[in-house]
Amino acid sequence: MDAKQYLLKTSEEVDGPIKSYIKNEEPQKLIEASRQYPYAGGKRMRPAIVLAAAGAVGGDRSKAMPLAVAIEYIHNFTLIHDDYMDGDDKRRGMTTIHVGYGMPTAILAGDALFAKAFQVIAELDISGDRLKDVLRYVTTAVWDLARGQEMDTANEGKIVSEDVYIETIRLKTSVLFAAAASGGAIIGGADKKTVEAINEYAMALGLGFQIYDDYLGIAGDSSKTGKSVGNDIRKGKCTILVTHAMEHIKDPQVLAEFKDLLGNQKDTKKDIDRAREILKEAGSIDYALKCARQKIDEAISKLDCLEPSEDKDFMIALAEYAIDRDV
Amino acid sequence: MDAKQYLLKTSEEVDGPIKSYIKNEEPQKLIEASRQYPYAGGKRMRPAIVLAAAGAVGGDRSKAMPLAVAIEYIHNFTLIHDDYMDGDDKRRGMTTIHVGYGMPTAILAGDALFAKAFQVIAELDISGDRLKDVLRYVTTAVWDLARGQEMDTANEGKIVSEDVYIETIRLKTSVLFAAAASGGAIIGGADKKTVEAINEYAMALGLGFQIYDDYLGIAGDSSKTGKSVGNDIRKGKCTILVTHAMEHIKDPQVLAEFKDLLGNQKDTKKDIDRAREILKEAGSIDYALKCARQKIDEAISKLDCLEPSEDKDFMIALAEYAIDRDV
Repeated sequence: MDAKQYLLKTSEEVDGPIKSYIKNEEPQKLIEASRQYPYAGGKRMRPAIVLAAAGAVGGDRSKAMPLAVAIEYIHNFTLIHDDYMDGDDKRRGMTTIHVGYGMPTAILAGDALFAKAFQVIAELDISGDRLKDVLRYVTTAVWDLARGQEMDTANEGKIVSEDVYIETIRLKTSVLFAAAASGGAIIGGADKKTVEAINEYAMALGLGFQIYDDYLGIAGDSSKTGKSVGNDIRKGKCTILVTHAMEHIKDPQVLAEFKDLLGNQKDTKKDIDRAREILKEAGSIDYALKCARQKIDEAISKLDCLEPSEDKDFMIALAEYAIDRDV
Repeated sequence: MDAKQYLLKTSEEVDGPIKSYIKNEEPQKLIEASRQYPYAGGKRMRPAIVLAAAGAVGGDRSKAMPLAVAIEYIHNFTLIHDDYMDGDDKRRGMTTIHVGYGMPTAILAGDALFAKAFQVIAELDISGDRLKDVLRYVTTAVWDLARGQEMDTANEGKIVSEDVYIETIRLKTSVLFAAAASGGAIIGGADKKTVEAINEYAMALGLGFQIYDDYLGIAGDSSKTGKSVGNDIRKGKCTILVTHAMEHIKDPQVLAEFKDLLGNQKDTKKDIDRAREILKEAGSIDYALKCARQKIDEAISKLDCLEPSEDKDFMIALAEYAIDRDV
């Protein structure tokens, strides 16, 4: 199973529905702003997880489509607000919404997409009890996303513990993966225990994915990631590489040197190379890869309860892909 | 029936539940920011409408409590975001959230309250079909609120037509009143026709309420409203008084004078008095009062389909109160 191929297939499935719910109406500017990210594509990982989870528990994938759309809208709504809060001008080559449309429209486009997500969820053709379960997972995820982003803001420029780092990325990334997977499983008709196993799969997958992202941020190829490698160092982002390095750089002089490089916007390419060398020598790069691998193994083990199927194969392949990608 | 008394009684009913859903957790700053407005009280008109509508159709008011809480959270989430967009420092004597906690926390507190609202809606003890109906009304309202705020921003400093003005306040104010009322009626077990009538009641009530608010903004007593009378003129807000005046000031010199006063931050108290005098002579103040009265009569007439009850009496009294208040 090639995860990338499956993701491409899912994109083709979901692109139409994603575009179908945001109708032309006034004011045009708000509609355009709210469409930009969902219409632009992307990996569509979260919708793919929704559909695969529904199929993997023996359910009808197509019944889960409204949730696949809703989760993508929620993901996009948080990107719009985060971009503004973080002051980012570009996202995947596009101008961010607040730069293109102004601050008020960006905040409103995020709010509108959030509302639209729940409008679409109301279209799910499932029992009231299952609908309430889906709502619980999704609303808890958004509540947690806000907590995670707040923690991330509060952590800026600080060195936090690995526990705090893991809790932050759990809230910022894993909870929406988990809502996608659990929601899909609920719609697919899974029992409580299976829903819980799939929820744990996605939680671990999200952690592995994010830890690998942090690895790419320092050791990736910027011509492929599209992100300037070293920016995490320049911004002083406290990734798992940094939390590890702080405890494993033995030479006090090297530690002082690393602290100087961290959070320094003026770091040159040479400085970044040096920071990478220090991280490598401290074993922090290997440690990050090892942690990501552990999370992915944990994720895959949670799927043992499922019968073999193409959707299950994808869920396994996606987990492997999360820590074996250039971008 | 004294609407104010009934509102006070409702406040006592809903204050506990409103405080019960936002638990203590990390990060504390976000939790505190998201609590500030819901905990601060206010008229609690929207929750009162939810509960009254449930009771007025013969249902159990207490079953509608989660929706009453959710609608108040949604109202508060929009206030937090609007305050930031509008750059307002104060709300009812309180420091606004972005001033007290900073921009990122304010945006996140709004998002979090929005998520919490739907978490609470998932607690409603009603059938799946009714739950979906409630979700449709509420999500459409939030989508429309964003459209209304966007239109309001776009209208700033412009003279728009009365139609555009009415559409803007319908989206900014009426739709959430209408979601509160329709949602309450759905939970109370009303049939489709009754839900629709109650929806129309609340739509008209919202318009009457907002038009009267605009009247208070120019002719009210600032010691009671707590708002600086004349600020709408200084800001150049295109209320129904202004749209009327533009077409009914006959003397071109007076019209030019009025246009100069409109949107001039430096207007003195004397300037505001002059603007009020011009509006009065053009018949614009009387016209606003007449329009508000018409909307309220329309609202009340929609309730003819309901059996007599204390809750129905409140809904009528609330409509009368909307255009007979100092604040």
